[in-house]
Amino acid sequence: MSEYNPSQISRVKRVHRRAAYDFKTVHGILDAAHFCHVGYVIDDQPYVTPTLHWRDGNRLYWHGSSASRMLRQVKTGVPVCVTASLFDGYVLARSAFHHSANYRAVMAFGKAKLIEDPAKAEAALKLMMDNLWPGRWEELRPVRAQEIKATTVVTMEIEEASAKIRTGGPVDDEDDYALPIWAGVEPARQIIDPLVADPRLTDGIPIPDYLE
Amino acid sequence: MSEYNPSQISRVKRVHRRAAYDFKTVHGILDAAHFCHVGYVIDDQPYVTPTLHWRDGNRLYWHGSSASRMLRQVKTGVPVCVTASLFDGYVLARSAFHHSANYRAVMAFGKAKLIEDPAKAEAALKLMMDNLWPGRWEELRPVRAQEIKATTVVTMEIEEASAKIRTGGPVDDEDDYALPIWAGVEPARQIIDPLVADPRLTDGIPIPDYLE
Ligand SMILES: Cc1cc2nc3c(=O)[nH]c(=O)nc-3n(C[C@H](O)[C@H](O)[C@H](O)COP(=O)(O)OP(=O)(O)OC[C@H]3O[C@@H](n4cnc5c(N)ncnc54)[C@H](O)[C@@H]3O)c2cc1C
Ligand SMILES: Cc1cc2nc3c(=O)[nH]c(=O)nc-3n(C[C@H](O)[C@H](O)[C@H](O)COP(=O)(O)OP(=O)(O)OC[C@H]3O[C@@H](n4cnc5c(N)ncnc54)[C@H](O)[C@@H]3O)c2cc1C
Ligand code: HEM
Ligand code: HEM
Repeated sequence: MSEYNPSQISRVKRVHRRAAYDFKTVHGILDAAHFCHVGYVIDDQPYVTPTLHWRDGNRLYWHGSSASRMLRQVKTGVPVCVTASLFDGYVLARSAFHHSANYRAVMAFGKAKLIEDPAKAEAALKLMMDNLWPGRWEELRPVRAQEIKATTVVTMEIEEASAKIRTGGPVDDEDDYALPIWAGVEPARQIIDPLVADPRLTDGIPIPDYLE
Repeated sequence: MSEYNPSQISRVKRVHRRAAYDFKTVHGILDAAHFCHVGYVIDDQPYVTPTLHWRDGNRLYWHGSSASRMLRQVKTGVPVCVTASLFDGYVLARSAFHHSANYRAVMAFGKAKLIEDPAKAEAALKLMMDNLWPGRWEELRPVRAQEIKATTVVTMEIEEASAKIRTGGPVDDEDDYALPIWAGVEPARQIIDPLVADPRLTDGIPIPDYLE
């Protein structure tokens, strides 16, 4: 299997030429996004909670306090929608109607479950760290049992997922191209700025390789 | 009234010192975010759909196709959660447990309704444009009645909303500060890159002031 199989839930209808279901595209967007939005329902009320996620194959993971309402709700196995979106810019056309945005987004559906075994929860948290900064976990003050206990890690096997991507410039009505109106793209991008060392950093600690 | 009044739905419990409910903070984050995630439920399944939003006072707006499943569902007046989040960087501590992220986020709750009057829908779309690029609406090829007809604009009065903000460096256990481990912030930011003109732009069209 190399792609998700969309049901009515995840089959893209609107502008469906922008859709993809293959693992490469879906997982690539999930990995490119720094964080996601987790959708779940409590008493008929939907909630959309931003959180950091990480991935291993077809599984998503996220974590937080063992007292978290979001985590307590999703770990009961209710249906969840995890959406990861990247905004790539505004698209300016010659008519208001044809304005748009460039973006990459994934909507992933499944049911989350608690990782009960503390060793497995710790391994999942290590994977989160390894994905961001390989080698850092080993340098840190070791994790304590009570810290793992205070933490809930959940995992969701992706049952189905869709990607939707828009790229490129405006697409105008043929008659409008001759109009003297500026059209094009205002590209946007998430960047990482120079590191800010903690003021309490002890002297002589070099910046680790994984942060260069 | 200058702040939202949180019920059990929107009162922040986890790390509640990071919470705010005042209009200035909540609206400021909504305006700073380029887009949002709309959460809604169809047949017990939650969906989280990324979309562009705009604001007028305590009202949020968003738009799309009149055939959109998301818009058709939310305009029935079901409960909706609109979340707008900005990722401001990773926070690296001396223990894995104290790693964090800097962010600004708002979760806004209410019920959306359709703007039925085409003139009001058009005025709302003009506001979307005016917020982004003041003066552009007037320069464009005028909107057509059939374009407004193909478009659904919904509005949601914010019934309650919370903001949650984390800023600053790591907060470590006192004993860990002496450890020879790099700690600090890896700041992140969404930027706008230089404009990319449409290859079919007619010669001699200057870049409009609102894009400089
Ligand atoms: C940054 C950003 C801004 C956007 N702004 C707007 C806007 O202003 N107006 C607008 O109409 N649309 C916008 N979109 C697209 C929007 O997310 C939806 O695709 C669109 O609104 C159609 O919604 P629908 O429920 O009718 O889609 P349908 O095609 O009916 O949805 C069916 C299924 O398709 C999949 N799907 C739909 N949309 C996406 C998606 N974006 N990513 C991954 N899978 C998806 C899901 O599995 C969904 O359950 C934006 C997207 C992004 C990422
Ligand atoms: C970019 C980003 C990354 C994050 N990563 C993580 C993570 O990896 N792990 C983690 O535990 N948390 C993370 N958070 C915080 C997360 O959004 C929640 O605040 C936290 O998980 C607690 O959830 P809860 O349901 O237990 O909150 P509760 O405090 O029980 O939520 C109650 C109410 O408080 C309000 N509220 C809660 N969180 C927010 C918020 N973020 N913004 C606005 N209002 C809010 C809502 O109205 C919510 O309904 C992240 C936030 C952002 C923006
Ligand atoms: C600031 C101006 C605008 C921006 C940035 C904008 C942006 C967008 C985006 C990003 C989409 C999603 C396209 C997709 O699914 O990939 C969209 C859809 C849509 N927009 Fe706009 N829009 C703007 C103005 C307008 C106006 C003025 C109208 C109507 C007169 C309009 C009508 C529509 C319609 C009908 C769709 C649905 C397309 C579909 O699903 O087939 N938009 N818009
Ligand atoms: C890459 C490493 C990590 C990052 C980037 C990270 C990030 C975050 C973020 C952003 C939050 C939300 C804080 C808030 O609500 O404002 C959080 C919460 C939390 N994290 Fe982590 N984390 C990491 C590793 C860990 C590890 C290894 C543990 C446990 C050993 C852990 C335990 C917790 C707990 C318990 C909370 C809940 C705090 C609360 O709600 O009181 N985290 N984390």
